[in-house]
Amino acid sequence: MTATAPGRQATPWTLARRAERMNPSIIREILKVTERPGILSLAGGLPSPDSFPVEAMREASERVLKDAGREALQYAASEGYAPLREWVAAHVQAQGLRVDASQVLITTGSQQGLDLCGKVLIDAGSRVLVETPTYLGALQAFAPYEPEIAAVPSDDEGPLPEALRDCAAGARFFYLLPNFQNPSGRSMSAARRVALAAEAARLGLPLLEDNPYGDLWFDAPPPPALASQHPEGAIYLGSFSKVLAPGLRLGYVVAPKALYPKLLQAKQAADLHTPVFNQRVVHEVIKDGFLDTHVPRIRTRYAAQRDAMRAALERHMPEGCRWNTPTGGMFFWVELPRGFDAMALLPMAVDAGVAFVPGAAFYATEPQLNTLRLSFVTLTPEQIALAVETLAGVVRAAQKEAA
Amino acid sequence: MTATAPGRQATPWTLARRAERMNPSIIREILKVTERPGILSLAGGLPSPDSFPVEAMREASERVLKDAGREALQYAASEGYAPLREWVAAHVQAQGLRVDASQVLITTGSQQGLDLCGKVLIDAGSRVLVETPTYLGALQAFAPYEPEIAAVPSDDEGPLPEALRDCAAGARFFYLLPNFQNPSGRSMSAARRVALAAEAARLGLPLLEDNPYGDLWFDAPPPPALASQHPEGAIYLGSFSKVLAPGLRLGYVVAPKALYPKLLQAKQAADLHTPVFNQRVVHEVIKDGFLDTHVPRIRTRYAAQRDAMRAALERHMPEGCRWNTPTGGMFFWVELPRGFDAMALLPMAVDAGVAFVPGAAFYATEPQLNTLRLSFVTLTPEQIALAVETLAGVVRAAQKEAA
Repeated sequence: MTATAPGRQATPWTLARRAERMNPSIIREILKVTERPGILSLAGGLPSPDSFPVEAMREASERVLKDAGREALQYAASEGYAPLREWVAAHVQAQGLRVDASQVLITTGSQQGLDLCGKVLIDAGSRVLVETPTYLGALQAFAPYEPEIAAVPSDDEGPLPEALRDCAAGARFFYLLPNFQNPSGRSMSAARRVALAAEAARLGLPLLEDNPYGDLWFDAPPPPALASQHPEGAIYLGSFSKVLAPGLRLGYVVAPKALYPKLLQAKQAADLHTPVFNQRVVHEVIKDGFLDTHVPRIRTRYAAQRDAMRAALERHMPEGCRWNTPTGGMFFWVELPRGFDAMALLPMAVDAGVAFVPGAAFYATEPQLNTLRLSFVTLTPEQIALAVETLAGVVRAAQKEAA
Repeated sequence: MTATAPGRQATPWTLARRAERMNPSIIREILKVTERPGILSLAGGLPSPDSFPVEAMREASERVLKDAGREALQYAASEGYAPLREWVAAHVQAQGLRVDASQVLITTGSQQGLDLCGKVLIDAGSRVLVETPTYLGALQAFAPYEPEIAAVPSDDEGPLPEALRDCAAGARFFYLLPNFQNPSGRSMSAARRVALAAEAARLGLPLLEDNPYGDLWFDAPPPPALASQHPEGAIYLGSFSKVLAPGLRLGYVVAPKALYPKLLQAKQAADLHTPVFNQRVVHEVIKDGFLDTHVPRIRTRYAAQRDAMRAALERHMPEGCRWNTPTGGMFFWVELPRGFDAMALLPMAVDAGVAFVPGAAFYATEPQLNTLRLSFVTLTPEQIALAVETLAGVVRAAQKEAA
């Protein structure tokens, strides 16, 4: 890549080889097209802003700046704000993890957790295992470290333990999102978790467990974390983005003690520390049990939206379409009849006034073109009904055209 | 590295090769020892918390959450908050850079800017040029990308242009901190900037210009940025840490248009975006000219502290010690007589009740062991006088012992 300024010699910027692996987020590009006014968008992965505790944030910001303004605005520890690390340790202990606060690293969103794990664990050509499909943001975080990604086959309960034997050799880790996965909405069964963790332990395969949606269950809490069954061989990632607000960029990594120092050094090099103002404000909001009443309200809201989408899918979608009903989280995953290309369908849907994300972007290898992701947390139940009806009409029209 | 859990097979975590290059910050390790109560610390690089605009921050947080709470707490653009990008573009234009807001990328502190530049530009074995001495945080940000660092010789005006010819071949960039450098306090003369930029343009050598301290001038503003004289061949980094508060972690990268998209993709993969709450609050604080009165107050405060340290050094330091008086920023750089090892001196100084940072950590190659960095912004003028007197006593005692 070269660029010339008038009257000067061109200065060649030589890019690192890893830069070839970096690409604009396909989803963000799609969102630019689809989030124009008047479109009913099922595309975004954004939590409902109605759920943001604006007033609690305002009060907490005021208290933090009044009581500890200087500390909240000064440089701080790379590990994170100690009381917040204690809170996180207690929170994940409730999910079965036997950890203490010294294993908690506060990150600038859990996206940074993915980046730091990639930085510390992936060499060019290293094998990394992922689910089929998997979270696009994780693929993007890992890509600059030039892994060879291998997709593990799965069924409705999650990745198949018996498939690990063939692909675990030399793998640096297996990236998993067991609860209400983005994009598939799938949750891993308790039995599958036990079997997967046992097989990973047997094979010496480290796990990277990502849990941004685990608190957003509708009927019953998810089974214990995989990391609880493979403690020295698992890193666990969490986030405040879905239970409080994503604009604060607050996530965390819980790491085995053997690995923590390297992740901390990578964190220090990456941004010194996560904004301590944000950490203190969030701790102020949550320290006295705020989430115990706040998160159930989000669950109730999202469950009603999930119900609206399920009803609309059942009512309107043509024969040959499949979906599984998520028991938490934010997404339905729809398979159109074989032969459909969801990417080709998108412009027609946008013309008709509805948007979604084609599923192909979520496959590390061999994309399944007839899949699409529908978010149910952005629109009202009434809008969801209309959006799904419209989408079903577009699918039917395309079916007729192809027939 | 392996770790064994009771009753389970050990799980081998294989670290990436680059992890070998990551190390705990020597400065942070030193700070842990030296910042115990009762020590007069000249070691920290922390801005004075007395300068933090706590009340303005409180009012701005309140307004942002009242007027745009949902937007401030939602996911946002990876590029940064548009009005803040406009503000930054106008601010750097005043330093002679011909740029527009589309070239501004808001980062999670300027440390993240260093990391992103390393990620996009450095391959294992790539040559990267730095000053002698140079900013430790930059060395740490670049290290995971496994560069071969070459230190460019310099005099009191800055790096020597004639030295570039021998080391520029194949270099990915030359990292420079032209204003009140950390650690040396040195500023590059106007003539040296012109000569360096011209030689870099002639050689096709990209520049990475870091300017966290430029606004903290005491007598006259610094000469125009190097980037203004080599626009297509320079990346410029800035920060709100020294003029507002570091705990917000807000910095920015201004990049040539040819390079911007890759830095943006790297940013997206690293943490999606910098907290938009912080961006909106800072923009709310600064949009109507707050810094025009706030920054001069910081200058006045720091200038008085600089004067106190200069007077104390002149009064107390034994013959054979050298320092140059900084015309801005936060640091004095002291050379002890030849043969001194500042690292060996540190425990004696701490025993006597005063702390500093030995200079060796700031050299990429061939450390000059008789150097040390003194920060003048943390203590009061009276404390500075006492601290320097104490330090001088320690130096004198060590001289006697060696004689």
